[in-house]
Formats: sequence, structure tokens, C-alpha cells
Amino acid sequence: MAGNTFGNTFKLTTFGESHGEAIGGIIDGCPSGIKLDIDFVQSELDKRKPGQSKITTQRKEADKVEFLSGLFEGKTTGSPIGFIIRNQNQKSKDYFHLKENYRPSHADYTYQIKYGVRDYRGGGRSSARETACRVVGGAIAKQILKSIGVTINAFVRSVGEIELKTPIHEVDFSKVEETIVRCPDLKVASEMITYIESVRKEGDTVGGVVSCVINNTPVGLGEPVFDKLNADLGKAMLSINAVKGFELGSGFAGSKLKGSNHNDLFTSDNGEIKTLQNNSGGIQGGISNGESIYFNVAFKPVATIMQKQNSVNQKGEKIELAGKGRHDPCVVPRAVVIVEAMSALTILDFYLRNKAVTI
Amino acid sequence: MAGNTFGNTFKLTTFGESHGEAIGGIIDGCPSGIKLDIDFVQSELDKRKPGQSKITTQRKEADKVEFLSGLFEGKTTGSPIGFIIRNQNQKSKDYFHLKENYRPSHADYTYQIKYGVRDYRGGGRSSARETACRVVGGAIAKQILKSIGVTINAFVRSVGEIELKTPIHEVDFSKVEETIVRCPDLKVASEMITYIESVRKEGDTVGGVVSCVINNTPVGLGEPVFDKLNADLGKAMLSINAVKGFELGSGFAGSKLKGSNHNDLFTSDNGEIKTLQNNSGGIQGGISNGESIYFNVAFKPVATIMQKQNSVNQKGEKIELAGKGRHDPCVVPRAVVIVEAMSALTILDFYLRNKAVTI
Amino acid sequence: MAGNTFGNTFKLTTFGESHGEAIGGIIDGCPSGIKLDIDFVQSELDKRKPGQSKITTQRKEADKVEFLSGLFEGKTTGSPIGFIIRNQNQKSKDYFHLKENYRPSHADYTYQIKYGVRDYRGGGRSSARETACRVVGGAIAKQILKSIGVTINAFVRSVGEIELKTPIHEVDFSKVEETIVRCPDLKVASEMITYIESVRKEGDTVGGVVSCVINNTPVGLGEPVFDKLNADLGKAMLSINAVKGFELGSGFAGSKLKGSNHNDLFTSDNGEIKTLQNNSGGIQGGISNGESIYFNVAFKPVATIMQKQNSVNQKGEKIELAGKGRHDPCVVPRAVVIVEAMSALTILDFYLRNKAVTI
Amino acid sequence: MAGNTFGNTFKLTTFGESHGEAIGGIIDGCPSGIKLDIDFVQSELDKRKPGQSKITTQRKEADKVEFLSGLFEGKTTGSPIGFIIRNQNQKSKDYFHLKENYRPSHADYTYQIKYGVRDYRGGGRSSARETACRVVGGAIAKQILKSIGVTINAFVRSVGEIELKTPIHEVDFSKVEETIVRCPDLKVASEMITYIESVRKEGDTVGGVVSCVINNTPVGLGEPVFDKLNADLGKAMLSINAVKGFELGSGFAGSKLKGSNHNDLFTSDNGEIKTLQNNSGGIQGGISNGESIYFNVAFKPVATIMQKQNSVNQKGEKIELAGKGRHDPCVVPRAVVIVEAMSALTILDFYLRNKAVTI
Repeated sequence: MAGNTFGNTFKLTTFGESHGEAIGGIIDGCPSGIKLDIDFVQSELDKRKPGQSKITTQRKEADKVEFLSGLFEGKTTGSPIGFIIRNQNQKSKDYFHLKENYRPSHADYTYQIKYGVRDYRGGGRSSARETACRVVGGAIAKQILKSIGVTINAFVRSVGEIELKTPIHEVDFSKVEETIVRCPDLKVASEMITYIESVRKEGDTVGGVVSCVINNTPVGLGEPVFDKLNADLGKAMLSINAVKGFELGSGFAGSKLKGSNHNDLFTSDNGEIKTLQNNSGGIQGGISNGESIYFNVAFKPVATIMQKQNSVNQKGEKIELAGKGRHDPCVVPRAVVIVEAMSALTILDFYLRNKAVTI
Repeated sequence: MAGNTFGNTFKLTTFGESHGEAIGGIIDGCPSGIKLDIDFVQSELDKRKPGQSKITTQRKEADKVEFLSGLFEGKTTGSPIGFIIRNQNQKSKDYFHLKENYRPSHADYTYQIKYGVRDYRGGGRSSARETACRVVGGAIAKQILKSIGVTINAFVRSVGEIELKTPIHEVDFSKVEETIVRCPDLKVASEMITYIESVRKEGDTVGGVVSCVINNTPVGLGEPVFDKLNADLGKAMLSINAVKGFELGSGFAGSKLKGSNHNDLFTSDNGEIKTLQNNSGGIQGGISNGESIYFNVAFKPVATIMQKQNSVNQKGEKIELAGKGRHDPCVVPRAVVIVEAMSALTILDFYLRNKAVTI
Repeated sequence: MAGNTFGNTFKLTTFGESHGEAIGGIIDGCPSGIKLDIDFVQSELDKRKPGQSKITTQRKEADKVEFLSGLFEGKTTGSPIGFIIRNQNQKSKDYFHLKENYRPSHADYTYQIKYGVRDYRGGGRSSARETACRVVGGAIAKQILKSIGVTINAFVRSVGEIELKTPIHEVDFSKVEETIVRCPDLKVASEMITYIESVRKEGDTVGGVVSCVINNTPVGLGEPVFDKLNADLGKAMLSINAVKGFELGSGFAGSKLKGSNHNDLFTSDNGEIKTLQNNSGGIQGGISNGESIYFNVAFKPVATIMQKQNSVNQKGEKIELAGKGRHDPCVVPRAVVIVEAMSALTILDFYLRNKAVTI
Repeated sequence: MAGNTFGNTFKLTTFGESHGEAIGGIIDGCPSGIKLDIDFVQSELDKRKPGQSKITTQRKEADKVEFLSGLFEGKTTGSPIGFIIRNQNQKSKDYFHLKENYRPSHADYTYQIKYGVRDYRGGGRSSARETACRVVGGAIAKQILKSIGVTINAFVRSVGEIELKTPIHEVDFSKVEETIVRCPDLKVASEMITYIESVRKEGDTVGGVVSCVINNTPVGLGEPVFDKLNADLGKAMLSINAVKGFELGSGFAGSKLKGSNHNDLFTSDNGEIKTLQNNSGGIQGGISNGESIYFNVAFKPVATIMQKQNSVNQKGEKIELAGKGRHDPCVVPRAVVIVEAMSALTILDFYLRNKAVTI
């Protein structure tokens, strides 16, 4: 009930606060007999880890994952995979001033009222540090999906008003990792980096959009009514810290179109049925149709800014508050791998669920 | 696993195809001792039913709900509430031409591949007729929520390019039901109606956006990590037929802002803690903060158009296809009550889940 | 949460009280493309229905099942199967004297305290009438299991002190339906019938034991830790009204043995691995090993007796109470098909779950 | 799906094999603000740990639990509680001879067929070592239950044919921990110990029965149909390694009685409603009635014996096999705390579930 599990068949349950002993998780329902590349898991974590470039937080965490079970002689056994990531950088004095204060647009207030108690060190459970465990789960899911041909690529679509206009099917994913901002157009990437640096100098932060494309999904994934593939992909993305919006295929822009412009016409090519357009974003009636699944995810600006803001404390007294310590001026470059991880967890879960559709 | 259940504690499970005997559902986990107004349930169904105005499909269905269990002497007993709605208008000859053909942007193809068999009459299970059962569940959830003060109001924000610009907190919800398009500004509503009629005359369809506001939600609803309140609200909306996007609070526009402009500052008023702005849309860290929860839901244009379109049949042969029968030129006026229903189901589910947070 | 759903992948959700409009259910997760014999479903219901013989209640109910969805041209479509059974015999004046009284060993008191309200007509939701819906679900599950070779046979092992001593592997299942008591030894059956009639004449009731054997279960069903196949079979049986005990294989008697006598030795026969004994009851480490799964289920005597008993009413005042109307003197003959139904639901659910164990 | 989670609201998920790095778990849904005694958790683990007396296995494991999250300043925060227990005694050479051999009545064969791969060291995931994590979860659940008055006491009822005959309500629980066999009658305990020692000397093992009593359960716990309190208690017990049977209250013996002897008559004492007998075992209609909940759990003899037995290897070749290393001659003394733990997890889960029954 408490919502720390994702998935129905391939299930990830996570635990841990940003400044406790460790974070970690359990993957239950992982198919057996799959060779896992642990180095790949670590390389995915490195894409998310703090301190990776000048436009992320300068906080240092090795984010070294330690697997405790579920693997034997390099392969999955079908037993649950337990893992932990020790917290190294527990500089909680940076947070002591928050013990009784509510930071604007943070979860301090809502946690305090919900639970009556709060681990005030760095956001506790509401910290985005929790997403490291999602990256571990996603890195395993990606490897399994790869074995059936599915590939997942996310990138930074926009930072503030600076937006990559390239249509989704023309994006060159090989360029995503070429810049620290993870926008696959080097010119736009450069603008974004400059902008993020200027925002940081102001002690401010900025939002952005991550786009994601999933290719070679088998036809038939997704359940018809409440568990439509798009519904669970949406939930997956909206469960990531700071996300405010999700749109699949034509999205909000599609709501302005007429059916005659929006419909994806079926055609066939040597017996293989395809669509001529893909406004549907690869999902029709909640079920994958084999075309590219693509969507946008909107992230709000990071709430912690270095400028003074008005707020209140637990007693309801008015206070002034400014961020301390080392924070991200813009979260989207580090969010790219998280979006991919949540995509992988979702697609694999539906792939396994779909196995029970016939005898 | 098959995804016909919504909710964790207050659970709605539905069944039924558009042209079978009946559709229906079971509500499990409804608290006991609550007086239910059955007439209100029917009045909500009437807002969704086909044939209600000149801008909806002219197909006629009484959509009369019949309750079979779970109520005794007018009150809920805590036992599951079973209900059915008989299908009356089973003019399935309108659909016979679809037996082996795939309609563009419909679920015909994906269902056929997933299940290997398909009830081709009117979309079968993929028909939006299924949402009538959601409206029944929502109408019960609304009554329970009303008893704790929560109110839910949705309306049509846009049809095609025609958009109501009024900020969410200035909208007069009492006007929503004054026009058949359910836009609370009579002038904009009139433009929308004229536009929908012109689109229909072209044999075409158009999309739109529904906005929704939930007021007086208690602080503390939502679970911290995967089951954030916004994540499940998003899933609820994205599970509605034809929905392509969801955004909470500042949404996609918020991704362009800086933190200094976007943050909601806390203040207090006679000890009550409030925020000065509400870009968060009433949810912080996945948990309701007591402010208005508001969001937009994007609907694509209806896929069935009266114009001829290219497609293929089950054998992969190219064909031409045009819609027959009576269909909606624009789905958003009928979707307003569905958005409210899914909101009510979500909020009540989290309200009940939250009861286990302390001993 | 409210516990009206059984199963994880093949899910049955039921609704309905004994004297309401109807009872019914939804089967979600039924594989598609399976030809169903509806007459078989009805014939299974007939084995459970009241009034079938002189040793059951004389109450008459046709128990006619009506399918509303999920079938098309005689086959399952993968969509949820909705069904209802109308209640015909709503002679609730027999129950009016129970409005404020608590019957000994019935659920009147616990329901009243739990829900604060109670449908006092015939036990409401706690009535064994609900099990008719389990029989519908079980009759569908049996047909699917039959297509993969699995057979399920239950019979009456004992009534009071009268017990069939035949070892499980020597029982002739073809004789079960030859007598109204469903004990496959005609001599023992005759004793049981005579005993039940004598008990009825005393206005009393008696308990008994049902045994069940499941043959040809594929090796590998069951999940290792909490969802062991025996654990969920046990839950399935213990969820049936009046059940007080469950034992698999050697059961309670096995607890008295030494390992050297109890262990099942593996052998091989033309490459096929078998066990020489079967004290395990076909399940090892929670997972089916391909041998016969067999177990006993203990039913207490029916609580409603025609003799006067001391009790209290809702105010806590002491009263005297005797049963009215038509009740079963012994429940086990009608329970045989219910035990089979719950077995079928469990085995099919684990069969479908197991499909996700490898890619 | 893979069944490594127990509970619906208070949920324990476990991971780990007997000879891997560590075992551990996550408790999700633990209420916030509860002071936890970590020493008590360790003391419960000590009752289960190997090497504790001459009648258990002599294998040594410290079983030291390490909590990683969910606690702050000694109290629960409502966040998931992650914990690990490092494996120390990884003498896996004792198991190397099992790499390709199937031990009789062990899970080697079923795991191999189900997963196609097997961690053959000490049973891997099928090892009873996993139950240490249940004891951790149970020790936390017990503390929470204690705060609402619920107490749980299990003890050894029988070892082989040696049985404690004392009626359940006359048992003196304070004596359970006085002997290493955990039978509260010192004379019977002494016989049991002597018998277990003689069995061990033969290289053999023996089964037994554990009884458990839960007192002061609030009225109203349990859900009416499939999730009856007795059904989930039964599942909880049957999920423990080596368990073959479960009976509540009068159990199998009750099936021999007449209703007039079996019914529990209600009475009232100063307005408080009680029953004069308790054949129901504290549960009526699946819901707790406030009386003592009591039940028996049958354990088969440990499968690993030191005597030579016939078996087969993975190729199906016939072999001879005898146990190596250090094993329990009788599992029930160590199982007492596991039965209590699973009881605590079940009761607390239903207690929290029941909070949503009214608004």
C-alpha cells in the first residue's frame, strides 16, 4: 500500500533515505537464466550520479552498487535480486537548518503532516537519491529487453525556452552522450549548457523536457482498460521527482488537430502491417502496435535555489530561507537515464504480463 | 493482471463490450454505512450517455444502471457493489464491414494480434462504452468524498484551436452545465459548438482538452515514491480512451520557468499553512498539500471519420474505409464527467489508503 | 483490499448477498481463444445447488448462470467474463427473527461489529450462497486445465465419525456421483446417508472431511517463498465457509513420522523422474513435482440447528434461538464441487503465473 | 508475481539465498511514529538461529540484523524499512556433492525444472534460512501489536508421537522458553529432548506440531470472502518450510462433531459479548470475534537425514545419497518463533486493512 513497489510481474521495491546508511532494493520476478553485465549497471548509475559535470550538483557520491542475491555464476536464478548502495556523503549539517523549516515547493510540509515525523536530512525519502535504485532496476530490465530486440533512448529536448526542434525520427541518439547536457544536437546542447551555467550563477534553477523513444516493442503489450501501456508509462514518468507532465505521440498538440490529419493510416509492406504516420506514438487502444513509442516528460525547475525566499516553519511562523550546500541548477541531464530506466521497467513488466494472454 | 481493475483500496473492476449483453462492474472496498443517492448516479451517467445533444453521436442508449448488491435499506454494507447496464442499441450491422478490416488509429489491429480473436462489433472491449462503468464508480466515490468536503469540477478547456484562456481559479463551475459543450464561458462555448458542427459536416472530427480542479483534498494523500498522487491521477486520466497527455499545475509551461518564478512560497494565515502561488498544482513530493489540485487532459480527435481513408485488412491487403453509423465529432463534452469520475476514484482510493499510515 | 478477489493472474471477483437481487462475478485474465462449454458450467452449479437430494437443504434455487461478456462466437476473447445468477428464493421472512439476534457460530456478530450495519437476510454476504460464483469460475478454469491435461477430483472422505479408509491412489472417482453423499464407496456412502438423515431428524447437523486429488499438474507450479502452491491451495480451501483445517500429503499424521519413513525417494523410469512414495502430496519446496497433489479439507458442522440454543441480541440481552426454514444437515456433499472449483482456480492461476518465469 | 512479498498493507518482501552474500528484506507500509526496540528484534532472531542448543543444527550463524533505512531517532518514519543479515557460514563445500544430485523430499528437483538453473549451495532460496527475514518482520509487527494489546504465543505441541495434552487455555506460556525444545510442560519437554537426541543418533529426523494462541485481537479483523482471517493465517503458516497442515480451533476433530456440541454460544457479561465455548478458534465468518485465536501447524520431519537414501541425479541416473554437514534433527523448536512471526505479520496486516472499512 505504501507505494514503494513498481510493476506487477517484474517488480522493483526500493528503500532508503538520502542521508541514512544505504539505499537499495529488491527486484522480484526477474526471469531466470539471463546473463547480466554488472559493469553496465554501474555505467548507467554513473550517468545519474551527482558531481558528473559542471552543470550538475558538485556533491560527490560513488553510487557503487552491491548485489547481494539472485545471481549465481553470472546468471539470474529467478530468485529475488537484492542490492544496496551505501550512502557516503552524509554531510547532514547542510540540512540542519531545515529541521523545523519548510522549503518552498519541497515535500517537507506534506511529509510532516502525513507522517507526523520527518527525516529532515536532505529530503529523506523524498530525495531524488531514491531514483538511483530505479536506475539499477532499469539497467537490468534494459539488458533483458535488449535480448528481445527492444531499445530505449532518451535525451534532453529542452532547457527553459531552449528547445531542440528536430523531429523524433530524425534524432541521432549516438550523439546524446557527447555533451554533458545530453541533447543530441551539439549546437543546441552548447546553448543549453551556457544557459544552465548562467542560471546557476544567479543562484537560480531551470526546468526542461526529456524525450524518449522505445523501438522494436513487440505488438500486443498493454492491457485494454485501466492498465493501458500509455497509462502505466505515464504513471512511471509522473512518479519521477519534479515531473509535471507527460504526453505520448502527438500529445497536447494532437488535441488541436482534426481526425483526418491525425489518424495513422495502415499500410502493408511484404505482408508486414505498418502505419504511414505515427501520431499514436506506437500505442493504439492502450496496446503497442509495433511502431516507435515516443513521449515527452516535463520537469519543473529544481525547488532549491540559492536566493532568499519567504516561507514558514513548523510552528507556522514566517521565515526567510536560502538553499545551502550543492544542488543541481537543472535536473534534466541527470534525468535522461532515469526516464530510460522507468521505460525499461514498464515495458519489461508488460512483456512478461503478456505471456499469460494465451494458454 | 489483465488490467480491468482500478484502485488499491476502493477498487472498481469492470466488464463488458459495446455490443454484448451488458456492461457492468464491481466496487470492492466501499466503506459501510454510507447513504447513497442512486438518482445522482443516473444523472452522472446521463452526462456521459450518447445522443444527449446535437454535437455528440446520435446513437441512443438509455444507460440505465441496475444495482444488484452491496446496498441494504439505502446504505452501503461494506460488501461489494455489483451493477450492470444493459446494452440496448446493438445495431451491429453497422460494424459488420469491420470484421476483417483495421480502422486507422483504432484498436482493431492491436487487439487482433494480442488476443488472436476480436469482437469486431463496435470496438468490443476497446469501446469507450466501458467508461460508463467508471462513471458509476465515480458517482459513488464523489458522494463519499462530498461527505468529507472534497469537490471535483471538470470542464472543456479547448476544442481544436479554440481555447478558454481564463485562469483556473477564476473559472465559474456553475456555468459548465449551461451549454452542451461544457465550457463555462458562454461565448467561447458558442464558438466551440459552431466549430464542432462544421467539423461534423465535413465528416471529420476534432480533439480537445479537459481541465479539472479538485478542492479541499486533505493534506497527506499520496504515497512518496512510485504511487505519488500525481502519478496515479496521471495514470487514471491516461487510461481514458483517446487521451494523449496529462499535465499537473504548471505542467509543460512550467518546464520553461526558473525556480525563482516557479516555487510556491509558504505563508500562514491564523496558523493555517498555505502557499501564495500554486504552480505545484496542489501536490508536493507526490502528496497533497491542501491547495487546489488541477490538471489538463489532452484528447486526440475521434478516430472514426466519415471520409474515406486508406487502410489494410487482416490479410494485409490494402483497402479503403469510411466510417458508418453514428459517431462523436468531438469527445470532450462527454469526457468531462469521465475525468471527474476517474479523479474521484483516485482521490477516494488514496484517502482510504492513507488511513493505515498511523496506528 | 476488501478481499472479494481470488487469484493473481486468473482473477475471480465476486459480489452478492443471499437474498439480494443477484450474485455474480467477473473473471479477469482468462486466456483468449478458448472454446467454453456453458452447459458444463451449469452442470457444475447443479452439483452445488440447494434442494438436490434428501440430505441437503430443501430450499429451491435454479442457480441459472447468465454470461454477459467476454465470450464471442463461443470462445473467450481475453476480455473479462461477467456473469450473474439471479436470486429466486428470497423468502426472507424466515430471517426476520434474526434482525437483532446473533446466531451461535454464525457471522452475525462479527459482521455487525466490523461494518456497523448488516444485511440480516440469510447471512447476507457471509452466506455460502456466494460459493456458487466460485463454482462458475472453477468450471471455466477446469475446462482450460483439461486442455493441458490436468484433472481434479474431490469426494467426501468422512461424515462425523464415518470415514472412508481407502488410500487416495485406490479411490475410484467414477463412483463419486453415484450417491447423493458423493463418497465413492457405496457401502460407506450408504452409512453416511443414514447417519445424516438421523442427525437431521434430531434437528442437528454434523461435519465432515472432503479429500481432493489433482493429477497431471505440470512440474514447476508454485512460487518459492510466500506463495508456495500448498500455501495458496490452503488459503483457497480455508476461504470456503465452514472449513477449519487443511492438510497436504501426509499432513498431520506425517508430523509423527521420521525422515527415513517420510522422505519420497526419487527414481527414474525411461528418463522420466518420479518419486517412489508421495508423502509430499505432489509439492516440494512449494513447487509441484508432477506427482498427484492431494489434500484433506475439514468442515465443521453447520451452525444452524433446529434445537433451541442460548444466545444474545444486539443489545447484549440473553435470548433463546432455534433455526427456522430449510438448512443443510451436513455441508460436505455440496462442498465437493466447491473444493474442486477452488483447486481449479488455484492451479490455473499458478500455471499462468509460471509463464513469466523465463523470457 | 514471484511471491517474495507477504501482506497487503504491512508488506514484507525478502531476498537472499542461504550461501550468498546476505539475506534481507524491505518492510513497506509500517506506520510512522512508532518507537522500535532493535534489541528485541535481535532476541527474536536468536530464538531461530542455528546452533542454539544440542537439539538443533550445530551450524553457527550470528544472524546479526543491520537496519539500513526507515528509522530516524529510534522511531519509524513511515518510509520502507530495509535490513540485511550477512551470511557468515558459507561452508559451501558441504553442498558441492549436491550440484547435480536431487535430494529426496527437497526442492532441488522442482527448482531445477522450474528455473532451469539452481543455486545448489544449501538449498539456495528454498533454504529455511529465508525465515530469518520473517522473524525480523514479525518482531517489528509484534511490537506494534503489543501497543494495541495483542499478544502472540506459540509452543511445541508434539514431537513425533510425544504430545502435550494440556488444553490450549491451560497452557502456561511463561514456561515455553524454559527448555530448549520450547514445550511448556517440563516433563513432556524432557521426553521430547531425549527423543530428538535418540533420533539424531540414528542419523534420522522427526516431525512435530507447533500450536499458537493470539490473544486480545480486536473484533472485526478479516475480510468476508476470499481473505478470511483464517484463510490468510493458514496461508502464512503453510508458507513456512516443511509445513504440511493447519487447523483452526476445533480443526479436524471438529469435523466429527454435531452442531449442538460444536456451536459457540454467545453470552454477555456486563454488556460485553463473549462466547461460552471457543470451537471457532476466535474467528467467525472469516472475521475475528475477540476470543482467543488458536491453531495447530504440522511440520514434516526434516528431509536431510544422515542415512543413505536412493535418489537420482540431473541426468536421471540412479544414485545413493546421504546428508553431510550439520542439520536439524527436528525443526519445531526453532519454528516456534517463526510461527509467531507469521502470525504477527498477518494480524497487523489485517488490523491496518480494517482501518479503511469506514470513512
